[in-house]
Amino acid sequence: MPKYIDLTAEMYNGAPAFPGDPELSISWYCTLDTADFNLSVVSMSTHQGTHIDAPLHMIEGGEPVDRIPLDRLIVRAVRADLTYKKPREEIGIKDLLPYEKHIDAGCSVLLDTGWAKVYPKPEFFTDHPCITPELAGWFADKGVGIVGMDMPSPAAEDWKSVHTVMLSKGTLIVEGLVNLDKLGSEPFTLFAIPMRLKQCDGSPIRAFAILD
Amino acid sequence: MPKYIDLTAEMYNGAPAFPGDPELSISWYCTLDTADFNLSVVSMSTHQGTHIDAPLHMIEGGEPVDRIPLDRLIVRAVRADLTYKKPREEIGIKDLLPYEKHIDAGCSVLLDTGWAKVYPKPEFFTDHPCITPELAGWFADKGVGIVGMDMPSPAAEDWKSVHTVMLSKGTLIVEGLVNLDKLGSEPFTLFAIPMRLKQCDGSPIRAFAILD
Repeated sequence: MPKYIDLTAEMYNGAPAFPGDPELSISWYCTLDTADFNLSVVSMSTHQGTHIDAPLHMIEGGEPVDRIPLDRLIVRAVRADLTYKKPREEIGIKDLLPYEKHIDAGCSVLLDTGWAKVYPKPEFFTDHPCITPELAGWFADKGVGIVGMDMPSPAAEDWKSVHTVMLSKGTLIVEGLVNLDKLGSEPFTLFAIPMRLKQCDGSPIRAFAILD
Repeated sequence: MPKYIDLTAEMYNGAPAFPGDPELSISWYCTLDTADFNLSVVSMSTHQGTHIDAPLHMIEGGEPVDRIPLDRLIVRAVRADLTYKKPREEIGIKDLLPYEKHIDAGCSVLLDTGWAKVYPKPEFFTDHPCITPELAGWFADKGVGIVGMDMPSPAAEDWKSVHTVMLSKGTLIVEGLVNLDKLGSEPFTLFAIPMRLKQCDGSPIRAFAILD
């Protein structure tokens, strides 16, 4: 029996969104009290909670989320233990060198800074560790398929260049992961599964790992 | 390299919902023209398009979608070729007997009636073939994990009893699948992956198969 690790944050009514983005709303449309079934209505940003940024998020004419094939969303992955990073601290190329032997074209690297535990405090969205534009370029040049992380964004001040460097080369970005501490140090298979939202810039995902 | 078959209908703005349910809306919240990024907002029913019914959809105090473990959503499955069925025709136990050797507790059976090709015409939601309450009971008694189908509902007139018989015994229902004709006749692994919507009655899913 495979061992699954769910890496997805719960989506609940009122869960915080990235500042400025639309809020997550989940409400009953009808219930067993008033109808013969329960049915809910969900209103959400494509970047709510644990989600993927498709190239179209930042790149004019970029690939939308529904056009990313499943074989780029189900990939070999390694966790980088960056839990020694402090709030707002930079994550640079040197921090990833210990993992370089596992980093091939098409793979995924998951950055575990321990920041998930700050959620849902407001500073979750503002004070997280940040990757440098140089590290973003290093991932993109290696052809990394997915850079995932427990932070809500890979960068704060440099968010535009960091996103663009990766998305312009097809390196997808997954933000808001949880449970990364359960992954251990050996490579595993990552599933980063979005909804099939036509021509959209991103999507909430169900993210999980199957351990070897 | 595994062979993936995507079984998920595209979610697009204005895609039809089950009659009476809230409509699917996808719109731009901001775009590269007006901001530095594209971001969309999605409003949808938990039963939009290709989706899963959790027990809570029909059962008081039933299991919500976020509590269904991944090992019940990633299961061995077989396609039943029912493409000989006509609109509104019944699907009974005898139609499934040829597949009985593949039907074990926890597995999935996908009912391919060819009805997906009627989408998005209004009659997609009203004139589909229907399973009998007896077949629903047969699936539930065998402990089938997921009954999936290309129809928008397993039944029309008998929808309440058919849903209740299965959901009350933990047999999950997946509706609105596409591409079932690509699955062939051999068993495969089904992934029916919902969003992690807390305490919800169902969720749109990304459904796909990995062929052996």
